[in-house]
Amino acid sequence: MSAEPLDRPIEALAPELHAGRLSPVALVEAALDRIRRHDEMLKSFVQVSQSALDDAREAAREIRQGRWKGPLHGVPIAIKDNYLTRDMPTKAGTAVPDITFPMKDSHAVAQLRAAGAIVIGKTRLHEFAWGTVTPPTRNPWDLERVPGGSSGGSAAAVMAGLASAALGSDTGGSIRIPASLCGTVGLKPTFGRIGRSGIVPHSWSLDHAGPLTRTVGDAALLLRALSGPDPGDPSCQDRLVPDYTAALGQSLQGLRIGVCRNHFFGRNQVVVAEAIETAIGDLASIGATIRDFEVPNLEYGLGAIFAIELSSSTAYHDASLRAGLTAQFEPDVRTLVEMGRLVTGPDYLKAEQFRRVLIQDFHEAFEDLDAIVTPTTPLTAWAHDATTVEIAGGPESVLAASWRLTYPFNLTGLPAISIPCGFDRDGLPIGMQITAKPFDEAMALRVAHAYEQSHDWWTRRPQL
Amino acid sequence: MSAEPLDRPIEALAPELHAGRLSPVALVEAALDRIRRHDEMLKSFVQVSQSALDDAREAAREIRQGRWKGPLHGVPIAIKDNYLTRDMPTKAGTAVPDITFPMKDSHAVAQLRAAGAIVIGKTRLHEFAWGTVTPPTRNPWDLERVPGGSSGGSAAAVMAGLASAALGSDTGGSIRIPASLCGTVGLKPTFGRIGRSGIVPHSWSLDHAGPLTRTVGDAALLLRALSGPDPGDPSCQDRLVPDYTAALGQSLQGLRIGVCRNHFFGRNQVVVAEAIETAIGDLASIGATIRDFEVPNLEYGLGAIFAIELSSSTAYHDASLRAGLTAQFEPDVRTLVEMGRLVTGPDYLKAEQFRRVLIQDFHEAFEDLDAIVTPTTPLTAWAHDATTVEIAGGPESVLAASWRLTYPFNLTGLPAISIPCGFDRDGLPIGMQITAKPFDEAMALRVAHAYEQSHDWWTRRPQL
Repeated sequence: MSAEPLDRPIEALAPELHAGRLSPVALVEAALDRIRRHDEMLKSFVQVSQSALDDAREAAREIRQGRWKGPLHGVPIAIKDNYLTRDMPTKAGTAVPDITFPMKDSHAVAQLRAAGAIVIGKTRLHEFAWGTVTPPTRNPWDLERVPGGSSGGSAAAVMAGLASAALGSDTGGSIRIPASLCGTVGLKPTFGRIGRSGIVPHSWSLDHAGPLTRTVGDAALLLRALSGPDPGDPSCQDRLVPDYTAALGQSLQGLRIGVCRNHFFGRNQVVVAEAIETAIGDLASIGATIRDFEVPNLEYGLGAIFAIELSSSTAYHDASLRAGLTAQFEPDVRTLVEMGRLVTGPDYLKAEQFRRVLIQDFHEAFEDLDAIVTPTTPLTAWAHDATTVEIAGGPESVLAASWRLTYPFNLTGLPAISIPCGFDRDGLPIGMQITAKPFDEAMALRVAHAYEQSHDWWTRRPQL
Repeated sequence: MSAEPLDRPIEALAPELHAGRLSPVALVEAALDRIRRHDEMLKSFVQVSQSALDDAREAAREIRQGRWKGPLHGVPIAIKDNYLTRDMPTKAGTAVPDITFPMKDSHAVAQLRAAGAIVIGKTRLHEFAWGTVTPPTRNPWDLERVPGGSSGGSAAAVMAGLASAALGSDTGGSIRIPASLCGTVGLKPTFGRIGRSGIVPHSWSLDHAGPLTRTVGDAALLLRALSGPDPGDPSCQDRLVPDYTAALGQSLQGLRIGVCRNHFFGRNQVVVAEAIETAIGDLASIGATIRDFEVPNLEYGLGAIFAIELSSSTAYHDASLRAGLTAQFEPDVRTLVEMGRLVTGPDYLKAEQFRRVLIQDFHEAFEDLDAIVTPTTPLTAWAHDATTVEIAGGPESVLAASWRLTYPFNLTGLPAISIPCGFDRDGLPIGMQITAKPFDEAMALRVAHAYEQSHDWWTRRPQL
């Protein structure tokens, strides 16, 4: 493991920071230096904080004075640019000059600051989070390839060591897809676990907030800091926030891990399919009981998530549509936002009813299971100019392929984490997705951590 | 007051039934006899129970044996034909032969049977509850006029004394409008108070179940029997069911009653406006403090309820649409169901967002108020062939006018009761609507009861 602090996970840095052996100022300076050196090429940030160094000095002072706020104290964290921040304007990925947002902290950013984290800057996203490409951000493993999206800037920044962790948002896979393509950990918690007030909405009933991190342990630390009541988000639940770190390190002995053999298998790149089968075998070898099963009705999910996401996004952009501003959107996003007007109200309601059916289907599957593993994406990172990809012998649109394995857990609201489980022949990361019961993030983290600790994937770093 | 038991409210009959001075058999025989004599003309029933007399004999036996089930035991109650019943097929107001429903009791009917009520028959509704006319049912006060709808059969049957009370359902006013036009009491409780499983859906988020009765006291009795958890209705809340009768008979001293001067006033028939102003004066004279106020945003309510009701109804009828069965619907309902496909998903979501705003607006109004009074309908019963009505100097469509004052409380889910507060020069009843805070049906009942007891409107009966 490199000695450079930004190559180490927060779980390793926190004791150093707490003990005063590592200064938040040095850590933030290192991050700013790496951003200066690498981000002109990576294009993962849209803005770097002007006050990060001051914030780091304040954190250093607090820690020196014995006022340590916990493991995130003094740690540089990057924020997806659809989270409002009090000190940096938010653009939600759009270049339209007339679209602006308030200068105030979103709930999640306020939670991180309260935990002592240093906001290092704002990361690039696919415009309005409506896509899985995030141009022009580049994948740190291969600059000719995309980082995925919509939280592509956050994933690239974390993998390149420009920040210790980052926030993302996930409506159909926007945390997990770039995590998979860049090789980071990406956690979409249960719907209602992390408050979303102050995040520019994309689709109210599908949007989730969550972290992208170097390790599963770091995801546990961020989840704990981010969870809790949010009076500004009516769907955020005020329920106990467990010590997620306590769930880590337990054996998988006795756990029943399901492999959902329909929908999630049979149309993946060969290298992805092979890596997942190997990982499933590894989970069995470290104690889990593997059970194949199927979930009915999944074939209707794509229509349902399109009906809901198109309707919601278009409702959100109604003022821009009426003002003619969508003409200034990127062509792909403009098409989706204008297309949303073609979805009917009855279609929307039928999609919501389907959702209830799918939630029940997974509920029944979980009666005999503790967790479910699938690939995160059917493919590794694709080239910047690709609009279709070749999978299982046929061409498929990039959007259709990239979110196929993630959107079921936006429809159902189940917690899902993506972790690296291998690399393809071009050295591109492969992601495995682990899903658990509602509000059982601890179980998803426990399984992910056990797998992570039995491999060295998480230690690998791209050559920049 | 007539001595005929069906002219007396349940609150007067119950002690007689309990004491054995009145037999359920005599009561049900009287109801069946009145149906036979009057309903060929009124057309309020679509079906009369074949087992009502057997059920009455069983009730008589139980009461004789000391197994009295409470004030509804042995009382004949009519059921709107969109509630499923185990012993009578349900048609939900449609004549389409291929549309059929299961033979099992809806939750509300099961609750009534458990309380000892005798289901006397099924009443006519506007087809699929999508209208406020209920052809061909006639208004007992003037056979040339409509009873209102969609629960027109229930209102006509109760006012004509063909049943002691009836169930209705209310999506935009369908209990309160016919109650107003026929002069009965009609109660739409808070959304979530009465379970709706086994009622043919019209619009899931707007539909409410509730009773039509002779008196406010009877509404309290039925509300108590109908309330409570319904595992089949996810929106039904499992919360304490108060003894609503205990709320009655208290003075209005110290209560703050609001009069919402925008939207609910200024476009009503003169005779309706005068009757309501007199009633407001009467409420003041029996102790209430009257406060005029306004609620913002109400002018957007019609668009919102249309977007939601059209979308939901059309989603519900999707299978019929695809099978071409809507061609057999009545022309007005066919138009509404087919028109629902023109509402967009974004429109639907914007309507739902408006709804949250309106709920908050009323929440703020209720910070200084205990109840709100308005007219129930801007007009009295109109002629069978009228498609437009003349109000405040201009023509207006019957649907637009008839539900204008009721639909705000479907959008907000607030409890609302309609009671008679006078008669026009043609002898047609005028309705007053009383609204209270969420789940404070007791307050609406208390105010309604105090007004009712200070007048004799409720004792008046039409000449059949």
